Amino acid sequence: MNGLSPRTLWYLEHLTPDLVQASSVRQVIFEGDTPYQHVQVLETGSFGRMLVLDGKTQSSESDEWVYHEALVQPVMVAHANPRRVMVAGGGEGATIREVLRHGTVEEVVMVDLDKAVVDLCREHLPAHHQGSFDDPRVSLLHEDALAYLEQRETPFDVIIIDVPDPLEGGPAYLLFTVEFYELVRSRLAPGGLMVAQSGPTGPTTVREVFTAIARTMERVFDEVSGYDVHIPSFGMTWGFIACGGPDAPNVSAMSDTEVDARVRERIASGLRFYDGTAHRGMFGLPKFVREAVAAEKRIITRDNPVFAV
Amino acid sequence: MNGLSPRTLWYLEHLTPDLVQASSVRQVIFEGDTPYQHVQVLETGSFGRMLVLDGKTQSSESDEWVYHEALVQPVMVAHANPRRVMVAGGGEGATIREVLRHGTVEEVVMVDLDKAVVDLCREHLPAHHQGSFDDPRVSLLHEDALAYLEQRETPFDVIIIDVPDPLEGGPAYLLFTVEFYELVRSRLAPGGLMVAQSGPTGPTTVREVFTAIARTMERVFDEVSGYDVHIPSFGMTWGFIACGGPDAPNVSAMSDTEVDARVRERIASGLRFYDGTAHRGMFGLPKFVREAVAAEKRIITRDNPVFAV
Amino acid sequence: MNGLSPRTLWYLEHLTPDLVQASSVRQVIFEGDTPYQHVQVLETGSFGRMLVLDGKTQSSESDEWVYHEALVQPVMVAHANPRRVMVAGGGEGATIREVLRHGTVEEVVMVDLDKAVVDLCREHLPAHHQGSFDDPRVSLLHEDALAYLEQRETPFDVIIIDVPDPLEGGPAYLLFTVEFYELVRSRLAPGGLMVAQSGPTGPTTVREVFTAIARTMERVFDEVSGYDVHIPSFGMTWGFIACGGPDAPNVSAMSDTEVDARVRERIASGLRFYDGTAHRGMFGLPKFVREAVAAEKRIITRDNPVFAV
Amino acid sequence: MNGLSPRTLWYLEHLTPDLVQASSVRQVIFEGDTPYQHVQVLETGSFGRMLVLDGKTQSSESDEWVYHEALVQPVMVAHANPRRVMVAGGGEGATIREVLRHGTVEEVVMVDLDKAVVDLCREHLPAHHQGSFDDPRVSLLHEDALAYLEQRETPFDVIIIDVPDPLEGGPAYLLFTVEFYELVRSRLAPGGLMVAQSGPTGPTTVREVFTAIARTMERVFDEVSGYDVHIPSFGMTWGFIACGGPDAPNVSAMSDTEVDARVRERIASGLRFYDGTAHRGMFGLPKFVREAVAAEKRIITRDNPVFAV
Repeated sequence: MNGLSPRTLWYLEHLTPDLVQASSVRQVIFEGDTPYQHVQVLETGSFGRMLVLDGKTQSSESDEWVYHEALVQPVMVAHANPRRVMVAGGGEGATIREVLRHGTVEEVVMVDLDKAVVDLCREHLPAHHQGSFDDPRVSLLHEDALAYLEQRETPFDVIIIDVPDPLEGGPAYLLFTVEFYELVRSRLAPGGLMVAQSGPTGPTTVREVFTAIARTMERVFDEVSGYDVHIPSFGMTWGFIACGGPDAPNVSAMSDTEVDARVRERIASGLRFYDGTAHRGMFGLPKFVREAVAAEKRIITRDNPVFAV
Repeated sequence: MNGLSPRTLWYLEHLTPDLVQASSVRQVIFEGDTPYQHVQVLETGSFGRMLVLDGKTQSSESDEWVYHEALVQPVMVAHANPRRVMVAGGGEGATIREVLRHGTVEEVVMVDLDKAVVDLCREHLPAHHQGSFDDPRVSLLHEDALAYLEQRETPFDVIIIDVPDPLEGGPAYLLFTVEFYELVRSRLAPGGLMVAQSGPTGPTTVREVFTAIARTMERVFDEVSGYDVHIPSFGMTWGFIACGGPDAPNVSAMSDTEVDARVRERIASGLRFYDGTAHRGMFGLPKFVREAVAAEKRIITRDNPVFAV
Repeated sequence: MNGLSPRTLWYLEHLTPDLVQASSVRQVIFEGDTPYQHVQVLETGSFGRMLVLDGKTQSSESDEWVYHEALVQPVMVAHANPRRVMVAGGGEGATIREVLRHGTVEEVVMVDLDKAVVDLCREHLPAHHQGSFDDPRVSLLHEDALAYLEQRETPFDVIIIDVPDPLEGGPAYLLFTVEFYELVRSRLAPGGLMVAQSGPTGPTTVREVFTAIARTMERVFDEVSGYDVHIPSFGMTWGFIACGGPDAPNVSAMSDTEVDARVRERIASGLRFYDGTAHRGMFGLPKFVREAVAAEKRIITRDNPVFAV
Repeated sequence: MNGLSPRTLWYLEHLTPDLVQASSVRQVIFEGDTPYQHVQVLETGSFGRMLVLDGKTQSSESDEWVYHEALVQPVMVAHANPRRVMVAGGGEGATIREVLRHGTVEEVVMVDLDKAVVDLCREHLPAHHQGSFDDPRVSLLHEDALAYLEQRETPFDVIIIDVPDPLEGGPAYLLFTVEFYELVRSRLAPGGLMVAQSGPTGPTTVREVFTAIARTMERVFDEVSGYDVHIPSFGMTWGFIACGGPDAPNVSAMSDTEVDARVRERIASGLRFYDGTAHRGMFGLPKFVREAVAAEKRIITRDNPVFAV
């Protein structure tokens, strides 16, 4: 495999200072700055159309469905009757797309700080959102998710945190703190569930943020279930953590057949990654990941935040 | 994460013509040619010490234990009493290291065509083999695995195929054919199991070789169970397939507690990736992988081989 | 100098199979195909706006004036009264810009096969052409330069060959043959001069095409004077060769003061690279370049063309 | 030229934050740290064997003779009778090799701070030094060039400054100051000449250090003649400046025939780059270089040093 692509333009992403992933670029659909971040929409040879924020890949056409089904479906399927759902972040519109598959849903509030990014995704990533922004059940708000939750009165059945990594100086790091999770918990209805994208889970990366997020959530929630899935365009296995109060269903304990039955009940078609077997696979974390979480001591607070590298 | 490592030497691997993984190199331990292949032993910034054959990463210090535990432990643990084990390939010595953890083992025959690679690994990859080549139960042969099996009389309990990808012109492609699997089956003792590394399983790569290997094995074996795991230094999720005759245990059906009980019984210590939960996780393949296998039509034969890209 | 630019898009050009030049890309102004070639107009961090044809840099804002003054001025200045000038190629419009500096010029015929490239340059490279296409003395033709010359009756005082390298399968290689140079000679007025861009002149590259072009021209012309100049965006020193008949001025023999006097006479302002001292510098070729030309045996013909690598 | 070399190891050098030169690496001959700097000796596909200090290419087998002949020969040839010569730096041994070509030479004092680099060059770069270190006329000292000159009593006919770029924190920046040049001048015999490598001279790089060095030398010396030459492995045109007192020959004013006559007189064979024509070429600096020097205001002092980027 020594032939270089005839393409001469490449997108380089430093996964770590010692590891670079380079993708050939067929077209730069958009590049520019919003008030919050640097945005690129790229057509790549390896992953199709990609959204990149501040030099980090957010999702790609070739595998966004792995990421978004993995993020959304476990908690949505585990919840007996998800009617009100909040999504923090999720600018591509694919997170709400997955939520809207559930016929039970009556209200989806998507709160994404960066209107410009959402507008760009709406225009340039139709394969991601598939028209979900136009669903009458969706309210789209451009404000701080934390501020929104503070004043929200009606509780949610499911809250999905799909914000960028907690970068130093970035807009998202306050949404990875014990204070934020306490706020989330107070806004969940009985039996409610939260899930959050929680950073990489590889042997050399799991201690960056995943273990600290898991430990922090364990301070606040009764049920905390980590899981992960490989996202090729990230060049990494990515972690998610589902949480609930004492009356919440245990997401990780669902059997293949329970998951498949509920999917059959609720979702007509369209899932490509997720079903009962895949659910089982995601929650079967390697021993080293579980041991790293068990050994973690950090609790993330506003005063002691963690930052992704 | 925009700071480039101060390192100026980089190892570039084309995962596909449109995707390159670049790792900083701290030291070139060895580079040269054997009669069969080009060999590099590199000390990298991202993955520690790595073995590269013909420009493809074979394993790295930082995650070889994920690969080798995933390859070896499911079949070894599933087998009630593995005494005679054959390893085809496995030059680093880490495959036999995993086999030798089982106190039941009396004989390990490792057949690796390329003596020069094995000698290099023995010298330069001590953290991989951990002295396993010196175990008196191990016979090390440098010949063609196919020719060896043809003349072998005593059957094996477990046969492990850990050879490089089926590259065009490379030494390994004949070990990915229906003819070879029939030979393997004829050399398995009753209740015997085979497992083979079977190529990548990502959304854009699973159809390269994994699905065809799975279909080909289904022609020959009664029980065929695919599974996968993410190997960071490969930049990919990697597939394995375990197979057995009608009297063989069903590897994928073992429960967490059965796996954990057997590991406790047989293995004193040392596993970092594998246990009952991880076993469950590996066999929980995503829906798209299982659907791709189901849709596959190719059966690999000597006359119609498949080649990895 | 280890800090990587925060830019994540890079343009990679293989100068040789073992040497790559990578420039950060601020904006892809245009990328697409014409009937003749693949075209990119890139805004780079290192060289400003660049024109790339078939993956090879043609010129950049940061140093096109070095290239174009070096190509055009020696023959134009050496000619006592250049009135009719032909330019073959030169799509950016900077070659005619340099020609038009001479008040003596009455007619410039620019023959560039690829109308699409010229239109793109006109739109996207205003700093290159500076409006020269609108000069009433310019006729712009989109046809084969060879066919044009064959039917041209009025002879030219100066003919400038500014076509891409002689790539195999590309449009330009026939313009680097003894047959073409004979045609050019037949269309020069008494005292007329030709100049052609003639490929790289480095220690490892001068034998690729420069020496063969020089030898081929020596078959046809009486005065043949090679010279070179370093073009940073090419990552190389680039060669040019000026030729004339028996009655033509010897371009290389002009003294500093003769050049400066003629520039002062003819050109009001605008030269940044060229003057008498620079003229002397360009024609002072290194010993190894002159020895390589002297040792060259190849004569380029239609039947035995040479191709740039 | 889209085919990637089958080589998988590459040496990357940031020429600027926006420009990277990548060379395939056939062998890492040496990599390690001395008390003063990080050293790499690399066998590259594009330039042969290379010496790299602190991530910057110092010289390569394929073009070191261009660099070293250009550095040494103009002043050596211009001097009527160079008997005593000092070289500051020049670790590869190629600078003294060029000096020793002159039969007039009786004493060469080479002062290079970093013994470890010199030892490595002696062992690994035989094509560079060609045994010059063993010439009985050579004294090799490992100390600070400035301290050595301060206590030196017998004056030199020629002093050659071949030290690395003035990097911040590096060992060489004090050898690019008005104070150092005054010291050099005081140690030159009547008619003596100094030359120094003086940084890049491209359109975007000439103002980094070349112009300031030139202006600083003009404060101290009567005759100051800048010149440059392209070094492919540097990816740049490189500048040198020759200086002398009131009684020194004007290096730049030598004619082709004067240079050739003196070379014939003194040097039996071996020059590949330099002769009378090449001399003329080097001193014919482009207009923009001379204008940049004329416009420069910085005078480099110990208290106001300049640093290469």
